[in-house]
Amino acid sequence: MKAIVVLSGGQDSATALALAVRKYGAAEVAAITFAYGQRHSLETKFARALARRFRIGRHKVVKLDFYRHLTSNALMSKDAAIEVKKGEKCPTTVVEGRNAFFLLAAAVWAKELGAHAIYTGVSETDFSGYPDCREAFIKAQQKAIRLALDYKVSIVTPFMHMTKAEEWALADELGIFDVIDNETLTCYNGVPGRGCGKCPACRLRNAGREEYLSRKAKGAK
Amino acid sequence: MKAIVVLSGGQDSATALALAVRKYGAAEVAAITFAYGQRHSLETKFARALARRFRIGRHKVVKLDFYRHLTSNALMSKDAAIEVKKGEKCPTTVVEGRNAFFLLAAAVWAKELGAHAIYTGVSETDFSGYPDCREAFIKAQQKAIRLALDYKVSIVTPFMHMTKAEEWALADELGIFDVIDNETLTCYNGVPGRGCGKCPACRLRNAGREEYLSRKAKGAK
Repeated sequence: MKAIVVLSGGQDSATALALAVRKYGAAEVAAITFAYGQRHSLETKFARALARRFRIGRHKVVKLDFYRHLTSNALMSKDAAIEVKKGEKCPTTVVEGRNAFFLLAAAVWAKELGAHAIYTGVSETDFSGYPDCREAFIKAQQKAIRLALDYKVSIVTPFMHMTKAEEWALADELGIFDVIDNETLTCYNGVPGRGCGKCPACRLRNAGREEYLSRKAKGAK
Repeated sequence: MKAIVVLSGGQDSATALALAVRKYGAAEVAAITFAYGQRHSLETKFARALARRFRIGRHKVVKLDFYRHLTSNALMSKDAAIEVKKGEKCPTTVVEGRNAFFLLAAAVWAKELGAHAIYTGVSETDFSGYPDCREAFIKAQQKAIRLALDYKVSIVTPFMHMTKAEEWALADELGIFDVIDNETLTCYNGVPGRGCGKCPACRLRNAGREEYLSRKAKGAK
């Protein structure tokens, strides 16, 4: 294997998967999906379907059951409301250290498979208060992982400084606009495709989509 | 809580626990033990007993079931022999990235409890080919964790540059020589106290013990 993609089944990771497949070929790409007690475990179904659609070499779904014992948040609880509480920087959907765990686990598997690249769809641009989406964290994590495993692995973040509109443009260029539009799940409330339209993830995704389509329509005239 | 101790039930982590208790008081110390499919799950029993003996504020045992799906090694398998294979730097007991996971999980829990110190018994001195026991890794991991969680947590490594003999001397000074001698489990083959005497962990532990006792006997004359 050449690359491991951290695949949640959402827009960002699906587009990252398409980029890895374009670069290395589907047979040399593996994906890893984490089930960590999130409300929308529907995510893993979307991830599985995407792995099949892109005909990648391997896909693994890993349960991180321990997570709920360490921390609490709205994404993992059935009752909690999704919101940004007054006086808090982060939305209640923050799962502490989530990307740190994902990248570390992906790296351990990468070493097992002999892969040296890990793709993740994190972005600073749509920074929503998640500290482990920042570039400074990714760089520090890459260094820590290389030292921990004594193995050279690079964390690839194609969308770190891309807007959502630019990401939609890239999907179109890759010929997967419809796949992203219909076969991914980004919505915090578990509604596929364009989603509930109300949660922060849907708003960001849909605004980017409209912006891109509007630009494209103007450019086409 | 003031401090979280990564507690395996072995000599090093038990001594680290005693140090944290001396500094913060037992009520302000929590311990976390990881069950990751290791052969000697007996470890967790020793960890629980140590937590009771030191009367610490909290103790949590966390199962990391996902580990066996990512990598393979002798500590997690019933059949594999414990050895250093020819041409390999590391013994077959290496669990890839183990300390990286432990420290990250401990940090997530530390943030939940409001603790800012994490104690771990890792040491470069008895470096046995485990890259995630090195000081360079610990520093990189601390930086990555702080960025991931946006939270100031310090990884405390009292034994990083201490020999095993010095660690036995410290245990004696702390008044827990007998606790370490009889109530901890370091042996790879799961034999408590002085252990099987043959595996690398036993040899290191027992050589340090003899060295300290011999020095003490000379000094006492």
